[in-house]
Amino acid sequence: MKLTILGCHSATPRWNSNPTAQVLEVKGHLFLIDCGEGTQVQLRRFKVKFSRIRHIFISHLHGDHFFGLVGLISTFRLLGRESELHVYGPKGIKEAITLQLKLGKSWTNYALIFHELESKDSQQIYEDDTVTVHTIPLRHRVYCNGFLFKEKLGERKLNIDAAKKANVSMSYYEKIKQGFDVTSESGQLISNSELSLEPDAPKSYAFCSDTAYEPKIIPQITNSTLLYHESTFLSEHQELAEKTKHSTAMEAAQIAKDAKVTALLLGHYSGRYGDYEVFRKEAQQVFENVELAEDGKSIIF
Amino acid sequence: MKLTILGCHSATPRWNSNPTAQVLEVKGHLFLIDCGEGTQVQLRRFKVKFSRIRHIFISHLHGDHFFGLVGLISTFRLLGRESELHVYGPKGIKEAITLQLKLGKSWTNYALIFHELESKDSQQIYEDDTVTVHTIPLRHRVYCNGFLFKEKLGERKLNIDAAKKANVSMSYYEKIKQGFDVTSESGQLISNSELSLEPDAPKSYAFCSDTAYEPKIIPQITNSTLLYHESTFLSEHQELAEKTKHSTAMEAAQIAKDAKVTALLLGHYSGRYGDYEVFRKEAQQVFENVELAEDGKSIIF
Repeated sequence: MKLTILGCHSATPRWNSNPTAQVLEVKGHLFLIDCGEGTQVQLRRFKVKFSRIRHIFISHLHGDHFFGLVGLISTFRLLGRESELHVYGPKGIKEAITLQLKLGKSWTNYALIFHELESKDSQQIYEDDTVTVHTIPLRHRVYCNGFLFKEKLGERKLNIDAAKKANVSMSYYEKIKQGFDVTSESGQLISNSELSLEPDAPKSYAFCSDTAYEPKIIPQITNSTLLYHESTFLSEHQELAEKTKHSTAMEAAQIAKDAKVTALLLGHYSGRYGDYEVFRKEAQQVFENVELAEDGKSIIF
Repeated sequence: MKLTILGCHSATPRWNSNPTAQVLEVKGHLFLIDCGEGTQVQLRRFKVKFSRIRHIFISHLHGDHFFGLVGLISTFRLLGRESELHVYGPKGIKEAITLQLKLGKSWTNYALIFHELESKDSQQIYEDDTVTVHTIPLRHRVYCNGFLFKEKLGERKLNIDAAKKANVSMSYYEKIKQGFDVTSESGQLISNSELSLEPDAPKSYAFCSDTAYEPKIIPQITNSTLLYHESTFLSEHQELAEKTKHSTAMEAAQIAKDAKVTALLLGHYSGRYGDYEVFRKEAQQVFENVELAEDGKSIIF
């Protein structure tokens, strides 16, 4: 998986800080997560081949997470897009977008398909050959979901030395990767486990923004490879975090620790702190493996 | 008047070109004209004191002219704005903006007042002590208005030498500027015309975008000090201009010439031409005094 941060700051866009948007690449598929104002410019700035985006996931309907969506949808139209575009987001998103397109007589000439969410329980909302996406119900001032992207278990790996030694025809190699027992050139049945190795462990990415400290999500995100958890504030502003239903860096780290994730990525920073290293420093009091989101940063995991 | 160009390119925002937005300052009042995606960032980039904007005029509901409006309105809320904000734009704009605010439970804590337009005739839509604003009905693919900002005739100017010579008390000077006849220290009535001079000629700014070539607007904008007229294309793409209801630089210049304006400002450039000087060159075949809009450029007139 490759994650590219397009914007990671809270609230309003400025010339040097963009609101939330991320692109996740899983085996060649591009998924856009949230789409604050200016996201289409960030996609161009960081040279993402954004015509390849076919699925967009919107966590909630605060402006810093979705005001860039209608512009991106319009730009796809102007660029002559033909392929389907699927948008997953809270109930109401369809009306907000289509009303604006209608007012501008700017209906898309590609299929624009909305999948509106309103369940308070986690749901699988997407599946293809390589990945599933589930909602992660979060606790914020408005209805809000995180998203859990899980790779499926891949094919087994061919143990080429064992296959050669057992005198198995190369024409069986694909079958072996698919888990079948095969026969050797001499007609002997050989168990798959002797000819193949375990596939790579599937990777997973949990995107959790915006949310108050919400330990209920821990079972669902346990053992994720990478957890993005918002950290709008530091502990010194705990009260403000509670009031606005955001998290502190310390709380994000506690979730990461309890969920035993491999790495924690912080973001959705309030503009009141000059230096983002303070977020890492606070989180590392609880959980060691902390990365800081930065506009334009890519993480391969 | 001082005009600052925040964006002057057509269609989609990019990292180096912004869609339409302008700020017009008239005697300390700031008026925002159009508000493409990213306008709030441009306001910050060019250090406009945007909390002073109290009136926003939207020409039409294509995305490159209004997708930045909801974000700006939300940012005003986050910054604790208290003063009224008036938005003038085509019918439907109120629903588009308020629906998005409602979905995010982000009602403004200041008065947000919409003035929806649907007349096909020119109307006066704003007036204060110093300026009036009239719509300029344009011809585009959707309902669209330009805006004509006209300064009111100011006070007469005191002819200080004449006033001293006639032995008029300084306490009458304000009255003289207001056009009254006054009496001298010796009790003699003196006609105002002997003590004052004509006020400065009022300035006017005509904003015309987006529009096909539309000579009907000429009587209304005749003798404007500055005319902004869109020039999306060059004459070599005349057919495309007609099809999309945009103008060429040549057509913009013809309007400027026929309306006898002092200066013509071109903008709303298509991205297909590398160098904007080609627009000036084409327009100057018809009308000499041509300026090119550029993001961040200010013009005082």
